[in-house]
Amino acid sequence: MKKLINDPENVVAESVEGFGWAHDDIVEIRTDPLFVLRKGGAVQGQVGLVSGGGAGHEPLHAGFVGEGMLTAAVPGAVFTSPTPDQIQPALAAADGGRGVLAIVKNYTGDVLNFETAVELAEDEGTSVRTVVVTDDVAVEDSLYTAGRRGVAGTLAVEKIAGASAARGDDLDTVTAIAERVCSQVRSMGVALAAPTVPHVGRPSFDLADDEVEIGIGIHGEPGRHRIPAASADDIAQMLLDPVVDDLGLGSGESVLLFVNGMGGTPQSELYVVYRQARRLLEGRGVTVARSLVGSYVTSLEMQGASVTVLRLDDELTQLWDAPVRTAALHW
Amino acid sequence: MKKLINDPENVVAESVEGFGWAHDDIVEIRTDPLFVLRKGGAVQGQVGLVSGGGAGHEPLHAGFVGEGMLTAAVPGAVFTSPTPDQIQPALAAADGGRGVLAIVKNYTGDVLNFETAVELAEDEGTSVRTVVVTDDVAVEDSLYTAGRRGVAGTLAVEKIAGASAARGDDLDTVTAIAERVCSQVRSMGVALAAPTVPHVGRPSFDLADDEVEIGIGIHGEPGRHRIPAASADDIAQMLLDPVVDDLGLGSGESVLLFVNGMGGTPQSELYVVYRQARRLLEGRGVTVARSLVGSYVTSLEMQGASVTVLRLDDELTQLWDAPVRTAALHW
Repeated sequence: MKKLINDPENVVAESVEGFGWAHDDIVEIRTDPLFVLRKGGAVQGQVGLVSGGGAGHEPLHAGFVGEGMLTAAVPGAVFTSPTPDQIQPALAAADGGRGVLAIVKNYTGDVLNFETAVELAEDEGTSVRTVVVTDDVAVEDSLYTAGRRGVAGTLAVEKIAGASAARGDDLDTVTAIAERVCSQVRSMGVALAAPTVPHVGRPSFDLADDEVEIGIGIHGEPGRHRIPAASADDIAQMLLDPVVDDLGLGSGESVLLFVNGMGGTPQSELYVVYRQARRLLEGRGVTVARSLVGSYVTSLEMQGASVTVLRLDDELTQLWDAPVRTAALHW
Repeated sequence: MKKLINDPENVVAESVEGFGWAHDDIVEIRTDPLFVLRKGGAVQGQVGLVSGGGAGHEPLHAGFVGEGMLTAAVPGAVFTSPTPDQIQPALAAADGGRGVLAIVKNYTGDVLNFETAVELAEDEGTSVRTVVVTDDVAVEDSLYTAGRRGVAGTLAVEKIAGASAARGDDLDTVTAIAERVCSQVRSMGVALAAPTVPHVGRPSFDLADDEVEIGIGIHGEPGRHRIPAASADDIAQMLLDPVVDDLGLGSGESVLLFVNGMGGTPQSELYVVYRQARRLLEGRGVTVARSLVGSYVTSLEMQGASVTVLRLDDELTQLWDAPVRTAALHW
């Protein structure tokens, strides 16, 4: 294993410390327990937004803390849920007096630990709602999940709910908008090569030199099937078709198309996949009204990509376009 | 070779086409010959900025086209200079009546082809100055270079010269500022694993499982030496010390610290390197006044990172902070 790390036990703490120093105009780091808070903490009079999960998916979630998106992010160890006693103080710190929405990717550990943390927070007077993201159409149930996994669509939930909170919506409204995004977003991914978890020290799975895994999870969980390496255009179609079918997208609709890199794939390849996914959508009469291309929801240095489609309406488009100022998303 | 591409011959054209579609609010794509132009073309009354070079370093350069940075970017084939008859129309298109600055990384093919293109452009009435970026302290002369290579410091030249042009400076002033950045910026990189050029189909070099290459070039050119895999903190010091020494940085000075990913390295590792580089600078009494961390000047999916330091003065800091709105940098 060759990585730019020191002791694997310290990689998350050191990385978050560096992140905090590099972005001290946007965030502040709490270390006991560890979480990333928007600089200056909760915005009084706004609903707070908190997300979190195992590290290794950067810039998700800490890279999305800031104006117009998350109030706090709670990183666990690599691919490991943060603990309830780590999440609860983040929920409390995010409360600006109008309650907090927790955005949780659907992995059993995350769901259970957030549930416990929310109970603790409610006991201490923080009003919390929770949405669980389940956008991955690849499989029902998985290594760490009952039901569908939460993957790159989480970014859209965090961005749009963050804009809802920033315009002053109350907790019920922010929650309803987050749930609307969850109901309208779907994703599917592919792996070309496995990542290596630092404290494990060997690749998370084996792929032959001539095969790729269609429907991969962001922790390297199995997908639908392994196929011989294929062209980007063919793979883009294998990812897009199930997403479009599951959404029931029809001609005349508008979408956000988000092509996400898994961490080890060059940006040039992501744009090749984006190009084909866009052509296919347009061929179905679907308008790609908004686009995002980049490595935002990663799996360490895994090579691969995912395709996410969000069905847009006027309000979701407006909230997507609203200003955001975080380390990883800025417009 | 597993990559998300179609025919290797088409990867640049398809990737740039996708890039243009995804960012049609910022850029427009010219296809015959191929270059990326700021949407709406040259800004009348402002000096134009043009850069270019082989593809495979994305987001450099096309990702830096837009308000406050480049007017046009000219991509060659992967790791191959664009041609003079491709560069000349980009120079002409970038001319808003006050001349054009060409920013060229120091590789022999780029330097020669830009020279020829500048002669063609001057013949057709475009006034052009050229700066050559030579920030890589690792080696003198290299596979494709006489003198030092131009690497991640190019981003700082493009950003700061772009801000100078955007505030209305004349061509002599923009050129002088670009030259000042060139004189004050230094970089050095490390590779953990080699990239694979699509039309070659095999890794650009061999590294044993237990070794890394200190001083790597962004096309995989040899560095200073190969060493056994070391900790991130030790590697950060091996990259930073030559940079600081070459700059002659002393206590009390202020710098931009830029930790750049080579394409296949997770963001979390870049922040671990940033953390140590910052500690070392502060230990020398140097203030890290500005920071940038991310994969901006890449080498396809090469695993590794580079450390860039720019000595700041008040004017360079102000120009660095000036608004920028491109696909890859935005503040």
